[in-house]
Amino acid sequence: MVFLSRPTKFQPKRPLFVGILANTMLSTVPGLSGAGPSPEGSLLVPILDAELIWNGRITSSDATPNTSTGCPTPATITRAVMGLTGLTPLFINAGLVHRPTIPVLEIPSNAGNDPRKGPSVPDAIRLYHEGVRIGSLLSSHDLLVIGECVPGGTTTALCVLRALGYDARVSSASIKNPDSMKEKVCSDVLNRIGKIPDNPLEVIHEAGDPMMAVTAGIVEGFPGTVLLAGGTQMLAVTAIISALGKQIPEVVTTVYVRDDPNASCDKTARDIGTPITYVDPGFGEIGHSGLVRYCIGEVKEGMGCGGAMMLGNLMNHSPEEITQAILSFISEYSP
Amino acid sequence: MVFLSRPTKFQPKRPLFVGILANTMLSTVPGLSGAGPSPEGSLLVPILDAELIWNGRITSSDATPNTSTGCPTPATITRAVMGLTGLTPLFINAGLVHRPTIPVLEIPSNAGNDPRKGPSVPDAIRLYHEGVRIGSLLSSHDLLVIGECVPGGTTTALCVLRALGYDARVSSASIKNPDSMKEKVCSDVLNRIGKIPDNPLEVIHEAGDPMMAVTAGIVEGFPGTVLLAGGTQMLAVTAIISALGKQIPEVVTTVYVRDDPNASCDKTARDIGTPITYVDPGFGEIGHSGLVRYCIGEVKEGMGCGGAMMLGNLMNHSPEEITQAILSFISEYSP
Repeated sequence: MVFLSRPTKFQPKRPLFVGILANTMLSTVPGLSGAGPSPEGSLLVPILDAELIWNGRITSSDATPNTSTGCPTPATITRAVMGLTGLTPLFINAGLVHRPTIPVLEIPSNAGNDPRKGPSVPDAIRLYHEGVRIGSLLSSHDLLVIGECVPGGTTTALCVLRALGYDARVSSASIKNPDSMKEKVCSDVLNRIGKIPDNPLEVIHEAGDPMMAVTAGIVEGFPGTVLLAGGTQMLAVTAIISALGKQIPEVVTTVYVRDDPNASCDKTARDIGTPITYVDPGFGEIGHSGLVRYCIGEVKEGMGCGGAMMLGNLMNHSPEEITQAILSFISEYSP
Repeated sequence: MVFLSRPTKFQPKRPLFVGILANTMLSTVPGLSGAGPSPEGSLLVPILDAELIWNGRITSSDATPNTSTGCPTPATITRAVMGLTGLTPLFINAGLVHRPTIPVLEIPSNAGNDPRKGPSVPDAIRLYHEGVRIGSLLSSHDLLVIGECVPGGTTTALCVLRALGYDARVSSASIKNPDSMKEKVCSDVLNRIGKIPDNPLEVIHEAGDPMMAVTAGIVEGFPGTVLLAGGTQMLAVTAIISALGKQIPEVVTTVYVRDDPNASCDKTARDIGTPITYVDPGFGEIGHSGLVRYCIGEVKEGMGCGGAMMLGNLMNHSPEEITQAILSFISEYSP
């Protein structure tokens, strides 16, 4: 097993893990999102995941950190790495329906609208510019690892990638990716928009979600190294950054996204010109029946868990230490 | 004119200016607070001041940045120094009535209650512990300069200092300090509490404001150097920190607070054992009729403006550059 698909010698001195939280109302369309216990319940997932990472457990409700099949939310992986490395993460609210329950850097904003019905992020340009300021605010760090939690966000990613001309297919948190539903939403959105705007931020405005605008802005404003931690959603962000004519940051995700036969992760990364690293934590071999499900295509990635594992490795923790920390946290949390 | 009352050779490499925002319902008692256009309007002051610093102007309303006598809000000073140094400030919402209009690190919390009626910060211990986590989150910096904006906060400071046994008198943003009103509130609060709690955080719980709990927590969690930028309100925070048995950080404020005959700034700092630096920007001589009013006891300090000026100096800007930047910003904003 190769833990990181591309070797790196970068050793960050002052790294920060950032989790960007947002909603798109697309997650409330029944069947579209695999996150949360129900379409409405999907809206709460970013808040509960951030709470789990900050507090070590979900404290505001009796929600389980596992899917109905016992597969742990990727936030448990990110939390385990934060515990191992001693890092304190920064969460940013780019646009949520509900109010967070832990300390979060709040950008005044709203959840993303359904892009079939009208512009999904009317404030995209303002959010981008606030992101630039936040990138500058974080400039004492030498590395940002930026993850995201946006239920329904693979569908906004599909809309943005297609609007920018990429023949992309996106991943899903579900084993059975609702491809045809996503394709239908995407064609409805592209039909509504008609002529694609020249300004890539206007593409987010029409078809994206608030996370994309804030993340692209942070990348622009931050002077150090950025790793965008996520799968096809972060590829959509790099497609925006490329269309803006800026330097594209590296993306890091799990092998489970790369190996998703319904998605075109590796091809799309090549098409955009995005350097990408895949993390293989070997969940098939560590003896947890829930984590094994990542290997058969459930969950796969989320809350920057792939990037968090890479960060742990860059901070000199061995793959074995990292997977043991994950197993230990998960076993204690839901034995 | 001596710009800093105590010489220092510390040259920060990665400094951060932090503004802690909170409300206490005491600011809505007519006559008690000099902040804002009216008792109810005082509640908005932290949000408008943060907006002014972040955006360079008040954008959410047509409010003036000056008092009715033309004296500029201290936030204009802090803004001018941010512009001069190129620093991006971090604002933290420790407990406000209204929602901020710019990016702010939000701690889930409420405004402080009127301590005459019951415990003023029921969540003081939780806020302290979130502050500790935030101090750790900011550990990539080598210096934090922490200012505050809490209208009515000199009265909660009086209550806390007296509860902790200090024979203190506090400053005011008004030329005519409403001493007797503050004394009456304080004696009502101490009568209500009866026996003073042993745990200093319980003193905040009973008689303080949310800023105090969060600031004391950040000081505990942050591994580098902290300057608490404020007058008698920050002395109250150091009194709490001293009572907790922790190392007391340095306070920095303006000579206008030191020279307030109604306050006991220098004596109280000595009583607590707080190292204190006074900044003298010489507002009497720079040719602005509004800033001259600082010298006759109006405004005096706020939003960490004394600490911001000291920070500019630590970053190798001369006193002349700093006062010119202030004059230039104020003249452009309200010519």
